[in-house]
Amino acid sequence: MAASAYESYPPELSPEEEKYLLSTVKDWSIAHGLAVRPAPTFVEPSSDPTGVLATTAPVTLFPSLFPRKCFEEGLAIQKAYNELYSAIARDEGWLKSIVEELLDIDDFVAKLWETHLAVKKEGYVQDLSLGLFRSDYMVHTDPSNTSAKPGLKQVEFNTIASSFGGLSSQISALHKHLLAIDAYPSSTASIIKPDALRKSQSASSLAKGLALAHKAYGSSQAGRPLCVLFIVQDPERNVFDQRHLEYALLEENGVRSFRVVFQETMIHTKLDTDRTLLYTPPNSPSVSYEVTTVYYRAGYSPDDYHSPQDWNARLHLEKSRAIKCPSLLTHLAGCKKVQQVLATPNSPHLKRFLPDDEVASRVLATFAPIYPLDQSEAGKEAQRLAQNPDSASRYVLKPQREGGGNNIYRTSIPPFLEKLPETHWPAYILMEMIEPPPLKNAILRNGELQRGGVIGELGVYGVCLWRESGEILENLEAGYLLRTKGDQSEEGGVAAGFGAVDSCCLIDT
Amino acid sequence: MAASAYESYPPELSPEEEKYLLSTVKDWSIAHGLAVRPAPTFVEPSSDPTGVLATTAPVTLFPSLFPRKCFEEGLAIQKAYNELYSAIARDEGWLKSIVEELLDIDDFVAKLWETHLAVKKEGYVQDLSLGLFRSDYMVHTDPSNTSAKPGLKQVEFNTIASSFGGLSSQISALHKHLLAIDAYPSSTASIIKPDALRKSQSASSLAKGLALAHKAYGSSQAGRPLCVLFIVQDPERNVFDQRHLEYALLEENGVRSFRVVFQETMIHTKLDTDRTLLYTPPNSPSVSYEVTTVYYRAGYSPDDYHSPQDWNARLHLEKSRAIKCPSLLTHLAGCKKVQQVLATPNSPHLKRFLPDDEVASRVLATFAPIYPLDQSEAGKEAQRLAQNPDSASRYVLKPQREGGGNNIYRTSIPPFLEKLPETHWPAYILMEMIEPPPLKNAILRNGELQRGGVIGELGVYGVCLWRESGEILENLEAGYLLRTKGDQSEEGGVAAGFGAVDSCCLIDT
Repeated sequence: MAASAYESYPPELSPEEEKYLLSTVKDWSIAHGLAVRPAPTFVEPSSDPTGVLATTAPVTLFPSLFPRKCFEEGLAIQKAYNELYSAIARDEGWLKSIVEELLDIDDFVAKLWETHLAVKKEGYVQDLSLGLFRSDYMVHTDPSNTSAKPGLKQVEFNTIASSFGGLSSQISALHKHLLAIDAYPSSTASIIKPDALRKSQSASSLAKGLALAHKAYGSSQAGRPLCVLFIVQDPERNVFDQRHLEYALLEENGVRSFRVVFQETMIHTKLDTDRTLLYTPPNSPSVSYEVTTVYYRAGYSPDDYHSPQDWNARLHLEKSRAIKCPSLLTHLAGCKKVQQVLATPNSPHLKRFLPDDEVASRVLATFAPIYPLDQSEAGKEAQRLAQNPDSASRYVLKPQREGGGNNIYRTSIPPFLEKLPETHWPAYILMEMIEPPPLKNAILRNGELQRGGVIGELGVYGVCLWRESGEILENLEAGYLLRTKGDQSEEGGVAAGFGAVDSCCLIDT
Repeated sequence: MAASAYESYPPELSPEEEKYLLSTVKDWSIAHGLAVRPAPTFVEPSSDPTGVLATTAPVTLFPSLFPRKCFEEGLAIQKAYNELYSAIARDEGWLKSIVEELLDIDDFVAKLWETHLAVKKEGYVQDLSLGLFRSDYMVHTDPSNTSAKPGLKQVEFNTIASSFGGLSSQISALHKHLLAIDAYPSSTASIIKPDALRKSQSASSLAKGLALAHKAYGSSQAGRPLCVLFIVQDPERNVFDQRHLEYALLEENGVRSFRVVFQETMIHTKLDTDRTLLYTPPNSPSVSYEVTTVYYRAGYSPDDYHSPQDWNARLHLEKSRAIKCPSLLTHLAGCKKVQQVLATPNSPHLKRFLPDDEVASRVLATFAPIYPLDQSEAGKEAQRLAQNPDSASRYVLKPQREGGGNNIYRTSIPPFLEKLPETHWPAYILMEMIEPPPLKNAILRNGELQRGGVIGELGVYGVCLWRESGEILENLEAGYLLRTKGDQSEEGGVAAGFGAVDSCCLIDT
């Protein structure tokens, strides 16, 4: 395939082609739960007070082009990433050294660490940990060497509430359906073809991860029925994404689960004397379930903690015998400071956790250079780069904590730092911008079609179940997500209204 | 199970029980395409100009009680009904005698017959016919004999556009899901239990019916790709019901299909010299598909014929070599006059089409007494019954033609007849009201929960593929639908806003 063929991808659509594609997408998406609750800006809550309306999740009409080798490398190294982050989460001493640098500047990290210490004081009673991870990458083309092959560079590694695994399975199935019914113009036949489209098994695989933890928990000493508990936000527009995992958990694995709004944790759960976590469904108050696994789809961001009671709830859950997905230390392992110290040039840390040189080098190859904004040698260099508008234009400034939404890009960095007290600078890391190849696509959102330049972000899911002793019981690659956003915006997150779910159309570059 | 346990079914729900049930129903329905496009009274079209919003289809929260023996009898005799109606459709002479009585009073029947004669003049070129039938019943308890066992009485037999097969599979799966997650109060445990709930395979079975016709058509002489053509209305709020058949056709049978709005038939299809029906997708004008099977989900009601051009379109399709689902004569076989002559007491007609006495007697047992409103002996008796408010209160007056929406009930009959010229009376039949047992349920519609007395109507789907010669190639029972409406309303039809899709909770009476 000549590169020029890719340049005109996706093709312009005739009105008839667009009509067919759109009507198929609109109906297939609802028929298969590729959906979200509509944003209040689209449907006024007063016109749907009981919340029964839904709409197609923001989706791309076409699968975005993605280099096959990069895709395959991302999937291939996920098990190494699972191993890496489970090793970090087990190394409390090392994590402490990282976290301590953030204690004064990141209240959220400080509270998580404090909660960990509080649990530790009483003693952890569960030595199993579950990670449902997602490693996010962009394709990077070296701007100074245009003949170089594209490579995969990591944007971030999610250790908590890795989302879109439910919708990702559906969008990859939708793009395959569109191909099967010839909804794509014939001019794309040499690009969009069966072996270029890859179904994501993420819904099924993530549910399997929860089921593996559930099974590893063992039976209830008190003979109680067992369940997995989803800790969720309310309202949750992206609820179908989560529901798909719940349904796969029940239908493919026979495992019951319940949803509890994070702020209502203390109302519906309690700890037994042996710190067994008991859940009493409000609709069935005479039955208590023993919770095998706490799956956080809330509690990952400071915004979820409305009051000190919510930190009590987190402590309560963490103290319990239930397996946490993730544990506090695993949650902390996902902070950007960890990514930064691993990716600081010539860092000794990666080798500590991944002793196999070949494995470590493959992981290392996916790191984009990341600098601390502290008083180290690398930190001082970073400050110089960040304060100069010319050099800053190749960088992004990211907060250490999770959640997105607060990245500062390129020339916005110097004025931002100017307003920020220098004592707060170490709460950020400076990362070289990944330079993705120019792509185009069409995104359907709230019924409107937006066309133009886009940036794709590949997320690879991983499942890892381990013991505190270091024994890894399960380690699986668990499907993928492609999240695509307009290249005008610089922020991901489909449910927040900035991007669309997508699937990969693999190309050989 | 004591009858009294059923009297309090379904139980009152605590606020927590209702909340759990409703949130599950709202999310599961969208995740599984148990959905409709919202009515304009619910969502103003101007606020969703491109039509991307969807909502939970009107559903019952509980599966409605239904006598097991009646359910099983309905399914068991479907193949006999398929045989009966295929035999009627093959007996042009007999049908002519029926239709001739309606020619002057029912323009729609007259136009269908005229179209048949026009095709016949040129000669039919396809000897295969497909029926996707639905026989609708209510449970009847003889008001004069309360100790008698309930029986199944036929409401009508649909030979064209039998709807809700797609959603019926989903609602029966939803009620099973609600049971599996203990969403029903424990007080229902002796009633709602796994062996009482029956999954409807209607989506899969109806799609299989289309696939069997598609395969029986054979290959294209010209080497063209083959497809099934859905002839549809526009707009169609009940589109997901149809889409589920389309997806099952493709995924379970590998058969391509397209949707054509009835009024656009002549734009997108043409007849080849040998009357092969060719469909050219507007999005792909260089490809012509050969249509194996025309599946009417429009054209069943006079309202679908906006102009003489639409009758030309029907003629054009009927002239073609494609298998019709249904053929014109099969469509006519579904007119209520046919049901009436079969169900007129002491009618000789049933035996003509079902020579096996035992089979005929089982079918006969499901007929409610039906009278013509003509000058025959039975007709005169009917006129006396219909004009007297006392006796009329046990009857319903129904137009002969398809589509519903125009039935006249009980004491409304005498004043209606008074205004109707007597020459138009034979366009109606008089049917003894079926007296269903009192039932209760809760219906979710547009986010509002309505509780109260309901009436359930069981629809049993059938697939039948036959040759003009009388050879029956396929004859299958194809799943079921339960459609439940408030007992204040007297009209079915969920998408029209009068009822809800439901599934059966079988009970032993």
